[in-house]
Amino acid sequence: MTTPVALEPDAVLSAARGFLGDRITTNAAIREQHSRGEDSSPPTLPDAVAFVETTEEVSRLLALCHRHEVPVVPFGAGTSLEGHVNPVRRGISLDLSRMTRILEVNAEDMDCLIEPGVTRQQLNEHLRDQGMFFPVDPGSHCTLGGMVATRASGTNAVRYGTIRENVLGLEVVLADGRVIETGGRTRKAANGYDLTRLFVGSEGTLGVVTKVRLRLHGIPEAMSSAVVQFETLEGAVRSTIEVMQMGIPVARIELLDDDMMAAAIAYSKLEGYQPRTTLFLEFHGSEAGVQEQAKAVEAITSGHGGAGFRWATDAEERNRLWKARHDSYWAGIAAKPGHKALTTDVCVPISRLAEAILGAKSEAKELGHFTCIVGHVGDGNFHQMVLYDPTEPGALERAWDMDKRIVSRGLDLGGTCSGEHGIGLGKREFLEREHGPEALAVMRSLKQALDPKGIMNPGKMFRN
Amino acid sequence: MTTPVALEPDAVLSAARGFLGDRITTNAAIREQHSRGEDSSPPTLPDAVAFVETTEEVSRLLALCHRHEVPVVPFGAGTSLEGHVNPVRRGISLDLSRMTRILEVNAEDMDCLIEPGVTRQQLNEHLRDQGMFFPVDPGSHCTLGGMVATRASGTNAVRYGTIRENVLGLEVVLADGRVIETGGRTRKAANGYDLTRLFVGSEGTLGVVTKVRLRLHGIPEAMSSAVVQFETLEGAVRSTIEVMQMGIPVARIELLDDDMMAAAIAYSKLEGYQPRTTLFLEFHGSEAGVQEQAKAVEAITSGHGGAGFRWATDAEERNRLWKARHDSYWAGIAAKPGHKALTTDVCVPISRLAEAILGAKSEAKELGHFTCIVGHVGDGNFHQMVLYDPTEPGALERAWDMDKRIVSRGLDLGGTCSGEHGIGLGKREFLEREHGPEALAVMRSLKQALDPKGIMNPGKMFRN
Repeated sequence: MTTPVALEPDAVLSAARGFLGDRITTNAAIREQHSRGEDSSPPTLPDAVAFVETTEEVSRLLALCHRHEVPVVPFGAGTSLEGHVNPVRRGISLDLSRMTRILEVNAEDMDCLIEPGVTRQQLNEHLRDQGMFFPVDPGSHCTLGGMVATRASGTNAVRYGTIRENVLGLEVVLADGRVIETGGRTRKAANGYDLTRLFVGSEGTLGVVTKVRLRLHGIPEAMSSAVVQFETLEGAVRSTIEVMQMGIPVARIELLDDDMMAAAIAYSKLEGYQPRTTLFLEFHGSEAGVQEQAKAVEAITSGHGGAGFRWATDAEERNRLWKARHDSYWAGIAAKPGHKALTTDVCVPISRLAEAILGAKSEAKELGHFTCIVGHVGDGNFHQMVLYDPTEPGALERAWDMDKRIVSRGLDLGGTCSGEHGIGLGKREFLEREHGPEALAVMRSLKQALDPKGIMNPGKMFRN
Repeated sequence: MTTPVALEPDAVLSAARGFLGDRITTNAAIREQHSRGEDSSPPTLPDAVAFVETTEEVSRLLALCHRHEVPVVPFGAGTSLEGHVNPVRRGISLDLSRMTRILEVNAEDMDCLIEPGVTRQQLNEHLRDQGMFFPVDPGSHCTLGGMVATRASGTNAVRYGTIRENVLGLEVVLADGRVIETGGRTRKAANGYDLTRLFVGSEGTLGVVTKVRLRLHGIPEAMSSAVVQFETLEGAVRSTIEVMQMGIPVARIELLDDDMMAAAIAYSKLEGYQPRTTLFLEFHGSEAGVQEQAKAVEAITSGHGGAGFRWATDAEERNRLWKARHDSYWAGIAAKPGHKALTTDVCVPISRLAEAILGAKSEAKELGHFTCIVGHVGDGNFHQMVLYDPTEPGALERAWDMDKRIVSRGLDLGGTCSGEHGIGLGKREFLEREHGPEALAVMRSLKQALDPKGIMNPGKMFRN
């Protein structure tokens, strides 16, 4: 299974023009735009790009590709960091970014039904007047369809869960063009196999998501932020563990290590901060509730060497702080002009986080790498940026090697090779090591059951 | 697939005695105990009952049953209400109730690893000294393995989620005896297909769960309860919707309709309450937080005809109230001496809940049934007990007919046939209607991929 498939793109092209017209194209520039995401793998040109607008078009196109055994690679905003949208076996890049309708918003049930090309920002803009929001925030301009496909997460998963916990149901087009609905409108159900969760995180290898029903949340009455700096990384991690144990419902708790904080101070012109391990926090609740949360967190952090606890209720100040946090990727890159970055995505049990980060940092230093770290510390997930000079021969390969060492250490500590970016091309070699051969065989048998010809995003998740 | 399988129980018996000794038995009384759960379907005797104690025993027994095509029916505490443990195609009843070890508790990561025969009560007893608890509470003495198998839920899912959101990983023995581990120790992961969620709610039809890793929660600093009575059912439902929209983090919000409240007043000797639609609430948080929540809820309920808001922080008073809520099943039965009850488990979008309940109540009254309702109203899930006299010819059949009418109305309102009890035998006919033939075909293809001989709990979930 998932072996390279025979390609008859011409037959697909001519038939698909019948219902897509010039929305299926072999234009060189457009194929180039669909040859990769934001990953560091070599690009591959698809044979054609199809801009679909309806479920029916997706279904007809998949039925065609299935008949002719032509690969299909779903494409949203192209922000994948792990090569998901790279058409490594060519075929059709299926661009869903024009499917941007918000089909339903149900205020009483706090759910909505959207097309997969809708972004989080677009959805939240639409919801704002109704006092609701969708919390899952990976920090990039990705589509919600892409977030479903990669089981995305982000800065406030610690309170609101990842997209897995916030999807109620899906419409999915299967490899052969059949259309199914999974899940439903109720908040819970014990009604057969959980097909929704099977497709969430399946990275386009089992079918194409064409509608998403999401759970929404009420915009909290009050929000506040806090920043606290630590003498040691352990202090920041121990504080986080205690916050979680106390059940303080922090909305975000994010870590920047000393190198990343130095980069952020320089890039975002933050004043009054030291280049030390830092926690950024956000509290959601009632006016009194967020004050109480902040006080409780301050008491905890001060017991672990946290100092200079700065609390901000003012929206402008909060936005400035969180913009600095969200810009940390660019701050990290700016720390070494002319460099690029590989970003790892290890997640470990929180109790092992200090060990994972300190070990990876010191190994990187020994091997001559400059790295900086940002972490969704409440979830035990951290991203270590490995900077490299793309003009230096072998630099990318050495960065990949460092990346593998970081992942390997994370696995040794009981972690996973991906907290939120997915497997794609980049993490395939770790999937078997993490799950074992029998569990991997089960995954393969599910793939075989749903996509027997292996046309759905071939070469991703599994190595062959 | 899932057609009746050939039975060679004698070959399995003699081989299994080699490693189980007298823990595999054909004793008539033990077979009788394993012939049904707490459902209303006719019992079936298994050919034998095996009391397993280790994963290896489960693996060896399944490999044997697989070779000889003998059905295997996992059995925990036998509390299923939908016929899950009824060995309708005979074979081996696999009793896991002796696998009761708590293997790990990790306070820093707030997780634990247990065997499937552990009950929620046993686990919480074990955790109490460490300031943690496992919240999912179906209100019966079921095993956690059974809760995983049926995707159980209960009174505080509205705050803490169902067991689906609280399982980190599983060890599962597949139909052919292979052992896999799913999930892991991290709080989130984007690492391949979500096998954990595939087995959660699979009702023993895909494999046998032999270990469960659970997320734990900190015992809140303060807890309080409140009871409020309403002039109308709509008032109670509208109040609930508003509480959810405001994001008030109620830990439990439970509804008793007027008939159920009358039964509870009589059975639990509650004083000072009227036989009216009533909400029972519980608040978890800090001292100030629970006060604030209660005040906010009181303001909301009084705007919807709620009166006599009674607030209890005292543990004894709280326990008395919640005991009355938990005893409501017995209270309902006691309302009609000599009667038995069929319990439905419909879940609808909350916005349709008043309609679902009022419609079902008035239809029941027209058809001459006495019914009373308890609902996990924050989730849109309600249980309508249909009382019948087992000595009256045709009474059970008429109760089943009423049950089907309630489910049918729930589906028409965008709901599901099971919020938390599962499909088992009782809801099979609704599964296709709810999901459609294509989605059901996908479920069947997954079953076929993992259990090609159809030995795992045959006859459950699917009709053939």
